Amino acid sequence: MTISPTAVVSPKATIGKNVIIGDFTVILDNVIIGDNVTIQSHCLIGQQTPLADGKPLVIGNDSLIRSHSIFYEGSQFGEELITGHRVTVREKIEAGKNLMIGTLCDLQGHTKIGNYVRCHSSVHIGQKATIGDFVWIFPYTVLTNDPHPPSNFLVGAKVENYAVIAAQCCILPGVTVGEKALVGAGSLVRQDVAPETFVAGVPAKYIGKASDIKLKDGSNKSAYPWMRHFHRGYPQEVIDEWMKIYDK
Amino acid sequence: MTISPTAVVSPKATIGKNVIIGDFTVILDNVIIGDNVTIQSHCLIGQQTPLADGKPLVIGNDSLIRSHSIFYEGSQFGEELITGHRVTVREKIEAGKNLMIGTLCDLQGHTKIGNYVRCHSSVHIGQKATIGDFVWIFPYTVLTNDPHPPSNFLVGAKVENYAVIAAQCCILPGVTVGEKALVGAGSLVRQDVAPETFVAGVPAKYIGKASDIKLKDGSNKSAYPWMRHFHRGYPQEVIDEWMKIYDK
Amino acid sequence: MTISPTAVVSPKATIGKNVIIGDFTVILDNVIIGDNVTIQSHCLIGQQTPLADGKPLVIGNDSLIRSHSIFYEGSQFGEELITGHRVTVREKIEAGKNLMIGTLCDLQGHTKIGNYVRCHSSVHIGQKATIGDFVWIFPYTVLTNDPHPPSNFLVGAKVENYAVIAAQCCILPGVTVGEKALVGAGSLVRQDVAPETFVAGVPAKYIGKASDIKLKDGSNKSAYPWMRHFHRGYPQEVIDEWMKIYDK
Repeated sequence: MTISPTAVVSPKATIGKNVIIGDFTVILDNVIIGDNVTIQSHCLIGQQTPLADGKPLVIGNDSLIRSHSIFYEGSQFGEELITGHRVTVREKIEAGKNLMIGTLCDLQGHTKIGNYVRCHSSVHIGQKATIGDFVWIFPYTVLTNDPHPPSNFLVGAKVENYAVIAAQCCILPGVTVGEKALVGAGSLVRQDVAPETFVAGVPAKYIGKASDIKLKDGSNKSAYPWMRHFHRGYPQEVIDEWMKIYDK
Repeated sequence: MTISPTAVVSPKATIGKNVIIGDFTVILDNVIIGDNVTIQSHCLIGQQTPLADGKPLVIGNDSLIRSHSIFYEGSQFGEELITGHRVTVREKIEAGKNLMIGTLCDLQGHTKIGNYVRCHSSVHIGQKATIGDFVWIFPYTVLTNDPHPPSNFLVGAKVENYAVIAAQCCILPGVTVGEKALVGAGSLVRQDVAPETFVAGVPAKYIGKASDIKLKDGSNKSAYPWMRHFHRGYPQEVIDEWMKIYDK
Repeated sequence: MTISPTAVVSPKATIGKNVIIGDFTVILDNVIIGDNVTIQSHCLIGQQTPLADGKPLVIGNDSLIRSHSIFYEGSQFGEELITGHRVTVREKIEAGKNLMIGTLCDLQGHTKIGNYVRCHSSVHIGQKATIGDFVWIFPYTVLTNDPHPPSNFLVGAKVENYAVIAAQCCILPGVTVGEKALVGAGSLVRQDVAPETFVAGVPAKYIGKASDIKLKDGSNKSAYPWMRHFHRGYPQEVIDEWMKIYDK
């Protein structure tokens, strides 16, 4: 365990083996950190809130939390969580393994997130969102939750497995982005997006099948589903499964 | 007074009763903090700038500034200011009571803000904006101020009482969003928005009366003006006034 | 040299004359900081990454890095770099002199940036971007790089000299914004923008010549190229050159 002498770590926190804690990071009481976790400098981990109902923050083994990040108590992350810098993560998130949360992301809590999800920088996930496995969300995209703000009637967005939402999109409350669908950059999505389709625009409209989009690398292969060609950062057994389907 | 031993607090700062200051927070000289104020960790309070003309930062009683926030000298906030994390607040803002500034908001200064205003996360308020009372602004919305950037001719946006601007909108310079109006998500607002109307789109166009929008909770009541149904966080005497008007 | 007693500065870092380092700032090993540089509080400077190939972070003379900022090793900045607060700057950026990076900007690295470039707040610059001299980019604008995300085929955006991109734009991969062009607020730019033109919309379309836009200060002069009327912050010899061209 390598804890910076300038870090402030509560003796009540549960901290695993081989944990590294950076300069000026604060770890509060209600925190359970797994083995081989690195938390960089200037973080605030385990911020208290009555909305957590006393539940701890749980960070899985082999995770990396980059500097200036804030995590509240009451959320739970599987192994290999990786964050960018200055992420803000509220209570009551249940996330699977190998979630990546990019720099400046703002996760408002009360959200269910599957395995191997990637949020690029500056993604805002409103409360009550539901995100499947292997989802990609790109910068400045917002998942909203209030059909007539402000109100007490919140209905989260849903993003299904393998779906991709490009940069600067706004997903309106209650919308489902279907499995393996693609939402083009800058779209305002008011209606459900059917699986394996490509939508774009303000408001977003059906453009075609996602698989009709060709890779621009000269190969003329389909760019979607992206698992056909993009494997970086996934475990070999996952890639092997994809290859059985797509490499025929 | 509970000041973390790791905080750096200028002896020249004026600090009220029952103030809590978190770890690694820096309080500079030209700051007046009221009673019962909490400033969480990693903040920088009272950052100097010649643009403040020597005026102090004034934080009203019963305020909460969450972690990693930055306030410049030269702005003044009424009681019950509440911020999210990592807000950036420049000089020459005059704000009324119970302003809420969400996580990652960027207030550029030289702005007048009324009472009970709520900015959700990641709101950018350009200089020279004027914001009334009980206004709501949602994530990734920008109030701009330069009609032909870059220039020295800045003209702020104006948002009148009880108006609501949904997520990811851009309000162009000099535009007025009228009282009790609603701007739909993802709108680019080039022209003034009449009071009590609903506009949306790129560019934003008149859609109808705001009061024609119905609550989606099954009640079939009007969703706007929102004071009809949304009362969370407002004082009882304010709610009582609203009820006199709307609960007939 | 004025280094806060609470800062953590590696003895391996190379630090120039008259450098000021603020409270709770961390300076790591592989950093070369010029003379007369101020680095405010809560920064992380020289964050390690294998992607830097061992190259140092170089900060030119007379620079100002505001609080809560993060710089990785492996990037190089000319003299008079000025940042806002909480900027995030990754590796392999080569920038000229007097770059301004606004609060909350996210520079993803692997980017070439000319002289006198201004990024306002919350600008996201994806990898492989190329930015000329005297460029302006306004809040919440994104330069993307992946034509079919996620993929390994990245193609950066290019912004030529004196071009202006207004707030909340999305520049799609491989697009060139031509010299002295203007992209209006809220635009989604899918195609190259010809020099000296004005485009706007979703998707962006040709509106007219940039020089047809008149200043709204009552003078009825052309607002573009902006060097006709906007000189704040540029050196006199640069302004003199502009005046030779435009002040006839």
